[in-house]
Amino acid sequence: MSVVELGRFMDDLADASGRAILPFFRAQFGLDDKAHGGAPFDPVTEADRAAEVVMRRMIRDAFPGHGLLGEEFGSERLDADCVWVLDPIDGTRAFIAGLPTWGTLIGLRKGQTAVRGMMHQPFLAERFFGDGRSAKLRNAAGERALRTRRCADLASALLCTTDPRLFAAGEEAERFQSVQARVRLARYGTDCYAYCMLAAGQVDLVVEAGLKPYDIVALIPIVEGAGGIVTSWDGGPATEGGRIVAAGDPRLHEAALRRLSS
Amino acid sequence: MSVVELGRFMDDLADASGRAILPFFRAQFGLDDKAHGGAPFDPVTEADRAAEVVMRRMIRDAFPGHGLLGEEFGSERLDADCVWVLDPIDGTRAFIAGLPTWGTLIGLRKGQTAVRGMMHQPFLAERFFGDGRSAKLRNAAGERALRTRRCADLASALLCTTDPRLFAAGEEAERFQSVQARVRLARYGTDCYAYCMLAAGQVDLVVEAGLKPYDIVALIPIVEGAGGIVTSWDGGPATEGGRIVAAGDPRLHEAALRRLSS
Repeated sequence: MSVVELGRFMDDLADASGRAILPFFRAQFGLDDKAHGGAPFDPVTEADRAAEVVMRRMIRDAFPGHGLLGEEFGSERLDADCVWVLDPIDGTRAFIAGLPTWGTLIGLRKGQTAVRGMMHQPFLAERFFGDGRSAKLRNAAGERALRTRRCADLASALLCTTDPRLFAAGEEAERFQSVQARVRLARYGTDCYAYCMLAAGQVDLVVEAGLKPYDIVALIPIVEGAGGIVTSWDGGPATEGGRIVAAGDPRLHEAALRRLSS
Repeated sequence: MSVVELGRFMDDLADASGRAILPFFRAQFGLDDKAHGGAPFDPVTEADRAAEVVMRRMIRDAFPGHGLLGEEFGSERLDADCVWVLDPIDGTRAFIAGLPTWGTLIGLRKGQTAVRGMMHQPFLAERFFGDGRSAKLRNAAGERALRTRRCADLASALLCTTDPRLFAAGEEAERFQSVQARVRLARYGTDCYAYCMLAAGQVDLVVEAGLKPYDIVALIPIVEGAGGIVTSWDGGPATEGGRIVAAGDPRLHEAALRRLSS
């Protein structure tokens, strides 16, 4: 499959998952509970499941040898060279509150490297795409390349995090606080949009903890493709999730790492 | 001016302010600092000012005897029987982060009562409108009436608040925590969308502090028109802002008031 064909296939995944999800957005729908990343409550919707089912089927049909890792239905062939990493609805709290700041994450990992990523927001009809060397946004206004902006220090930075309660009380929360206390502005409730807005040069820094691989793999090629850096708090690879720091400017990443790393 | 004409005029205000704001959204733009409701930093954009200028001009032309209270340019004739209460961009943090969860608030106060309210989100092209007896949402999917949902107790409630750091340390923060600790799920970063999603039956409870009149007046007729209740933490009128609690179900409002009132 060529690069162009792979891009089209990811668009097809986004189209199909969007069609599966949208009827449930702002509609009456049932909620489940499940334990998730230390959060007290994580709803899983019918939409989440419907979208993952359709994406898994399309991937199995197109790439029978590829592996699969999804939020809802677990993993298959993780030892394959290429593994698709899926989160049908990243930002379930936004989704159930009716806010359009959730997204469908579609990532492709080759070996240990995240090589392709898409974030699709079907209600807004916008999709962010990256391959680690470039990144773009396509929406009603057309298509544009994404570039992170310069931001040399914490004092100038706009920081995003999904929820300050996701940091474990004690050292983890204290390290986050030591970053938050020094930034220009912090914004909560951002989920996958934080990384895409960092790629777009709207946001400078994202700090999170308790992420799963499917929360981050699709976003890595977008951030890196736009010129940003995303690692663990220790500066290691971000592909396994956990404690994550993303910055648009390497100097800011360095400054954040100094406060976050052990 | 008839009820229909008044509705059209508010649509015109929304259209004009949306045209003034949208070119600045997700674009390069300058930021100011100013002290605001206890928050550490509150950006004010060119968009905010441009939109308020155009709305004030339209209101002065159409209703020379009416009063005006706006976030950016202060008040005129507050002793008039009818006073327009405007917040061009409620949710400036969302705006500067590139997230589409801000809104333009257009409220009309008659005496001490908020009688008409609109929340317009021009990027999403959706507008919420209420007159205290009914409320509706108009967007790409058409127009639909809004109704709050039943939710009898805190344990079942989805709570929204804009930022937990907006509650003053001490008693105010403790009272909020005593509500938050008992709800099913809490979501941050919601601004005006929290009240509109409460009207739409997606969210059950909104608790905030440090609001200005222009943060809440436009939202009262929407919440009340959908069957909800919005008051101060002491159960008094919400029109002056300050500490606000809104609920979709009167039983939930009662339960929250028991924990929030002094």
